[in-house]
Amino acid sequence: MESSSTRSPLQERLYDIIFGFDSVAGRRFDLVLIVLILSSVLVVLLDSVSSIPLHYHRYFFWLEMLFTLFFTVEYLVRIYCSPKPREYILSFYGVIDFLSIVPVYLSFFFPAAQGMLLLRILRFFRILRVLRLMRYLSEANLLMRSLKASRRKILIFMVAICALTLIYGSLMYAVEGPENGFTSIPKSVYWAIVTITTVGYGDISPATPLGQALASLVMITGFAIISVPTGIVTAELANEMRKERSSLMCNHCERGGHDRNAKFCKHCGVELEDDTLVELS
Amino acid sequence: MESSSTRSPLQERLYDIIFGFDSVAGRRFDLVLIVLILSSVLVVLLDSVSSIPLHYHRYFFWLEMLFTLFFTVEYLVRIYCSPKPREYILSFYGVIDFLSIVPVYLSFFFPAAQGMLLLRILRFFRILRVLRLMRYLSEANLLMRSLKASRRKILIFMVAICALTLIYGSLMYAVEGPENGFTSIPKSVYWAIVTITTVGYGDISPATPLGQALASLVMITGFAIISVPTGIVTAELANEMRKERSSLMCNHCERGGHDRNAKFCKHCGVELEDDTLVELS
Amino acid sequence: MESSSTRSPLQERLYDIIFGFDSVAGRRFDLVLIVLILSSVLVVLLDSVSSIPLHYHRYFFWLEMLFTLFFTVEYLVRIYCSPKPREYILSFYGVIDFLSIVPVYLSFFFPAAQGMLLLRILRFFRILRVLRLMRYLSEANLLMRSLKASRRKILIFMVAICALTLIYGSLMYAVEGPENGFTSIPKSVYWAIVTITTVGYGDISPATPLGQALASLVMITGFAIISVPTGIVTAELANEMRKERSSLMCNHCERGGHDRNAKFCKHCGVELEDDTLVELS
Amino acid sequence: MESSSTRSPLQERLYDIIFGFDSVAGRRFDLVLIVLILSSVLVVLLDSVSSIPLHYHRYFFWLEMLFTLFFTVEYLVRIYCSPKPREYILSFYGVIDFLSIVPVYLSFFFPAAQGMLLLRILRFFRILRVLRLMRYLSEANLLMRSLKASRRKILIFMVAICALTLIYGSLMYAVEGPENGFTSIPKSVYWAIVTITTVGYGDISPATPLGQALASLVMITGFAIISVPTGIVTAELANEMRKERSSLMCNHCERGGHDRNAKFCKHCGVELEDDTLVELS
Repeated sequence: MESSSTRSPLQERLYDIIFGFDSVAGRRFDLVLIVLILSSVLVVLLDSVSSIPLHYHRYFFWLEMLFTLFFTVEYLVRIYCSPKPREYILSFYGVIDFLSIVPVYLSFFFPAAQGMLLLRILRFFRILRVLRLMRYLSEANLLMRSLKASRRKILIFMVAICALTLIYGSLMYAVEGPENGFTSIPKSVYWAIVTITTVGYGDISPATPLGQALASLVMITGFAIISVPTGIVTAELANEMRKERSSLMCNHCERGGHDRNAKFCKHCGVELEDDTLVELS
Repeated sequence: MESSSTRSPLQERLYDIIFGFDSVAGRRFDLVLIVLILSSVLVVLLDSVSSIPLHYHRYFFWLEMLFTLFFTVEYLVRIYCSPKPREYILSFYGVIDFLSIVPVYLSFFFPAAQGMLLLRILRFFRILRVLRLMRYLSEANLLMRSLKASRRKILIFMVAICALTLIYGSLMYAVEGPENGFTSIPKSVYWAIVTITTVGYGDISPATPLGQALASLVMITGFAIISVPTGIVTAELANEMRKERSSLMCNHCERGGHDRNAKFCKHCGVELEDDTLVELS
Repeated sequence: MESSSTRSPLQERLYDIIFGFDSVAGRRFDLVLIVLILSSVLVVLLDSVSSIPLHYHRYFFWLEMLFTLFFTVEYLVRIYCSPKPREYILSFYGVIDFLSIVPVYLSFFFPAAQGMLLLRILRFFRILRVLRLMRYLSEANLLMRSLKASRRKILIFMVAICALTLIYGSLMYAVEGPENGFTSIPKSVYWAIVTITTVGYGDISPATPLGQALASLVMITGFAIISVPTGIVTAELANEMRKERSSLMCNHCERGGHDRNAKFCKHCGVELEDDTLVELS
Repeated sequence: MESSSTRSPLQERLYDIIFGFDSVAGRRFDLVLIVLILSSVLVVLLDSVSSIPLHYHRYFFWLEMLFTLFFTVEYLVRIYCSPKPREYILSFYGVIDFLSIVPVYLSFFFPAAQGMLLLRILRFFRILRVLRLMRYLSEANLLMRSLKASRRKILIFMVAICALTLIYGSLMYAVEGPENGFTSIPKSVYWAIVTITTVGYGDISPATPLGQALASLVMITGFAIISVPTGIVTAELANEMRKERSSLMCNHCERGGHDRNAKFCKHCGVELEDDTLVELS
């Protein structure tokens, strides 16, 4: 938050509004931004529905232009008022902000290209900008910390799942064969993933008794395996919640583990006021 | 429970029977009510089955009239005997009580209207009245408290899921396109929700190898993500159960929720000795 | 285990073999019984496969007769050697034992009746007899205790799920209507159950945009709700496991919480031998 | 790690590189191995896609030969440098290493045999070799320990699930019958497994009202049951994580796993003071 000495008061003020969330103006700006992002996403959604009459699509086009213009101005102001513009541009949210406006401008130059469609999808990454505003909620931080703490365990689990689906998929390819829809090993691996995650589209499903027996084994494995990521996240989350609860320390006897609504220290009996109960980290 | 001084003994007596659950009469009334609500729901269910011969539907009609009459009388008596009628009418269960009788009366005036059907569905909200009786069960309260405590975390999680399905859905729209059933972005988002929640109808499913690879990613993400709400609820529930178990009450201020190792009451500050800290149940 | 004074040594001996699991003979009998039950179930399974040539079915018939004969003898011996025959006959496993042999005898008298098929399915309850042998495993007891402790919570949850599926199902019936497969409210409720449990057959699936939006809501609700029973069982199970761990008491200082492999009391330092470490319950 | 006295320095050096992971060379070797294993799996995957032009398959063949040659050399070197070759060959990973090379050599002698396909699938077990490298990650060990600790509970649960699906499957066979796709009891059991694990392909689904009611029961049972393995793994995982966190070591006998409130070492009985109980990490 330390600003360089050359920053103008306008920059300071804009920074507070756009990046901050303490001031009234900052919170109002956040609210307007959320509404605009959601409206813009809604327009992109509706624009893709071909059953909507053609003349509506023209309105959608102009709305999209308007939103993009606003987001462009916002992006430039963010660069202008940021104390470290370079850092902002290269940050996760800086890249998202850029990617969500650039496809519209590019579509002027390459209007009908095939690859354009995928590029235009990038506009959808706007929705990720909503996540930025959730940073301020302590619950979101708790969830993020739990997920971060279980990151490596989940990764190892994913590697094990991939190995398992490869083996199950190739076995099914050998057992059922192309005549029952298992046309190649990659497709059989796709089937194994569909099955082990308990999604079960039914676009490919075993037809032979042996295949159905093997599929039953895959399903029961999946049933048991589904418990592992849940176990990981639950254990980490319980851990994080326990930490949060016990991070309030009595300033008098310097012992922790107080509830947030406690009025007296349960260890030394001193009355707990706002300056006596200290949050640890 | 404080009644206004102008209430008649009849009102008091009816209040005990209809709202209370301590007296024998009150519990009998609750039982009769549950049977009537479930019967009425059964009649509505059967009434919608077109394969049942026509003359049965006439019986269903008269049964429905009878149930509605009873529920109307009950509703009026509830208003009559409630100490604060206004509060009851505007309460969650007051509105449910009203909504579950009004469609039948409205159907006399607008018998064949199209919107009528949706209105008649409101009769089904009767089933929610059963939930009212579950309030008295301590387990239901424990569950409700856990869900309430995890409310904000689940909401944040839902927002993240929505953002994710929007991005996955639009990517799939770009990859698979209308020729494989992904006719619009909203429909693709519907597919993403069907997939990430592991429901997997199979009414829309990816046909191209790239689409299947992307779908596999969506499924594995869903598999990992399914663990988050479970983790939240489990951690909160374990927390609530632990609290309930340790319902140690301070004998001085008669407030509970103390830890077993507490030396001073956190509410009134009195020193907790073996005879001051009373275990509740 | 207290036997009546009039029991013969043969009864005692048979009781130890058939009901007990301490002696070598008792454990051998259990093993033979498991093999026979599983073989008998396998024969019933294969007997239902119509693609197996007809002359095999004759073998299956004779095998089935043989198994039934053995199970009948076993049932009679169980009655003979049980100290309280009446109690055994009326117990859960006594009824199962009876139901798994009677259909075969009945099929002689009413060979081709339609209701016979359902009756013959009763033979399958034999498989439940395997569960009896799992009683002796402490892990099975731990699981049963956890499930028993969470019984009421799960029941309340089930009632809530039923109310929810009734409401969602009737809403879908109003939105989608018979032309999209939602032919009656009971069928729509069936769809809601298929969806909320994330099974998702796809035999009925929403076709209108409004229906798909409502279905998305149902799925996301189901996604959040799936966490509740898991949370209940996990919290109870963690509780039971904690209890089991902390139920070893040092006989010297009479304080608990020891690990089963502890060699010295962590509170008073006394050496823990088999007679010092006492299991509490 | 104790090597026999007759081992040459070359054997020692190779052992460090191939089996070890402490030296720089050892870690580089592991990295090369992972890349080769994954490339080899990719080649097998692509080789099965019939839409890839024929002349590519010739390249795949030669790549496969190359990989197999490398893995063969690696296998022989592993035997050569292992201090106990016999033990390595018969170990889990030794068998995997052997099975992943032998099918390629066998395919020279029996080129077009039908059973060959299944044998060639064995090449896929190569992917399991990646798991070997995960042993060194403490998170993987934690997960493995939790799964090992819950092994017996999960097994009992699986037996209960099998009994349940047998009963539900045979009931459905009696209710729905062959005309609705439930052609035999084994197939109905397959349907019950598909349903209870919430996979729900929809290749077989109930058509009669009674069948749909029974299926609803199966699904709701499955919904409640899905919580049991999750509960088991979560409780064990939380337990293991708690143990790991409290890795307090007795300074006297240098063994860990003490509780923070322990006053005496549970292994050697020495009194634990602040300087005796050392936190490990």
